Amino acid sequence: MPRYRLTVEYDGTGLAGWQRQANGPSVQAALEAAVQGFCGEAATLHAAGRTDAGVHALGQVAHVDLVRDAPADTVMQAVNAHLRLGAASGQVVVTAAARVGDAFHARFSAIARHYRYRILQRRSPPALDRGRVWWVPQALDRAAMDAAARRLIGRHDFTTFRARHCQARSPVKTLDRLEIRADDGEISVEASARSFLHHQVRNLVGTLVEVGRGRWTPDDVAAALAARDRAAGGPTAPPDGLYLVAVDYPPEAEDAGGPPAGA
Amino acid sequence: MPRYRLTVEYDGTGLAGWQRQANGPSVQAALEAAVQGFCGEAATLHAAGRTDAGVHALGQVAHVDLVRDAPADTVMQAVNAHLRLGAASGQVVVTAAARVGDAFHARFSAIARHYRYRILQRRSPPALDRGRVWWVPQALDRAAMDAAARRLIGRHDFTTFRARHCQARSPVKTLDRLEIRADDGEISVEASARSFLHHQVRNLVGTLVEVGRGRWTPDDVAAALAARDRAAGGPTAPPDGLYLVAVDYPPEAEDAGGPPAGA
Repeated sequence: MPRYRLTVEYDGTGLAGWQRQANGPSVQAALEAAVQGFCGEAATLHAAGRTDAGVHALGQVAHVDLVRDAPADTVMQAVNAHLRLGAASGQVVVTAAARVGDAFHARFSAIARHYRYRILQRRSPPALDRGRVWWVPQALDRAAMDAAARRLIGRHDFTTFRARHCQARSPVKTLDRLEIRADDGEISVEASARSFLHHQVRNLVGTLVEVGRGRWTPDDVAAALAARDRAAGGPTAPPDGLYLVAVDYPPEAEDAGGPPAGA
Repeated sequence: MPRYRLTVEYDGTGLAGWQRQANGPSVQAALEAAVQGFCGEAATLHAAGRTDAGVHALGQVAHVDLVRDAPADTVMQAVNAHLRLGAASGQVVVTAAARVGDAFHARFSAIARHYRYRILQRRSPPALDRGRVWWVPQALDRAAMDAAARRLIGRHDFTTFRARHCQARSPVKTLDRLEIRADDGEISVEASARSFLHHQVRNLVGTLVEVGRGRWTPDDVAAALAARDRAAGGPTAPPDGLYLVAVDYPPEAEDAGGPPAGA
């Protein structure tokens, strides 16, 4: 069966997250229903990042094996047509599709995941970006957040920033990038790693915002990391501001044939 | 009665536009209900731009006379608290407030209005920005749009780009800026003038997109302008992509006392 790589954008507002759930529409279920609508047979999608309820994606990557051998462009257009008719109509869209080889696995072949966390810092709540940013109604100390972020980059035991129910085998991860950007009343945190623990980005951001508010120092953050204890970390930032921006794969994983479609 | 200038952000999706309407919730009605909730008496709001249904604002400006003499910051916070309880909850927010003199009029004192029109050019529809952009599923020729835009800048009779029911006394306006920006799959048109005719920005954008698609040349646009006939113009772009970004006033109009609040 031909394997396809799909790049997926979604507005996570009101969705139960990536994974199929009993309690609400999920991105996976919306895509699987759309693929079934196109192919006539059930198919399972595998994603690079199993995002939580309310989390958004600009460039989630998933793969699926289809019973039909169709051009990638046809797959993209047909899945989008069926998505429009489905439960999460308008909220989930395939932005690119490509044929890939059987060795490609959206989750296990990934070598880097890039997340963005958007924080709106102003007195009044967001109107246009409600549900898309974390609203923090006070000015944050960006330089202090930057100093704290630098203490977190690198290979560490991230138990302090790991959800208690996280199923990863090891709490040791290498955080390649944790960058604070400020632009016009908005602060964004850009985080990149091969893989993340459950809630790791939101727990890191929740702690960095404590620093921005002046409640924690960068040294406090370093001490919290060293404690290897979730109770030593800051609060979990809400899902609203989190975006899975992109996922990287090695060139050899992308091999397979057929021209890509989209964008 | 003290006069206040309010800066207002709104998501126009599903709203009937600025003006009070019988057929649906409007920005004006939402704000007037919130002001009444705060002051206990009915008040009328006057806006710089009477935006249409579905059009958004980052920096609409309105003024209102209140029976209560309260600090501008209190007005902003109280109106926002009442807006949250109202019909357009979350969609309309006051982002700044200031005391102004009786000579200030949000509509008549304005010396420049700045609009942005966002166009998403890609194969797949928007998920995160649905209702916030005009989706054009083909690549547009930005250089041709730019050349056409330059033919429209300046003082002209804009009858070709004016809604048939426009109530302005004269079709002659001075378009100070009409700039095409391209960024990452998105094209935006930035338009500035002292004032605009009804539908002028959307009619200009609809015509520029015909140029971007290769159906019209910049010369065709110049000829359409010279025809002074709405039938000679291109289609009206949908409201989804239009934002009232900011409104300028002369320094003397802003006089009046009391420190500003917000941002």
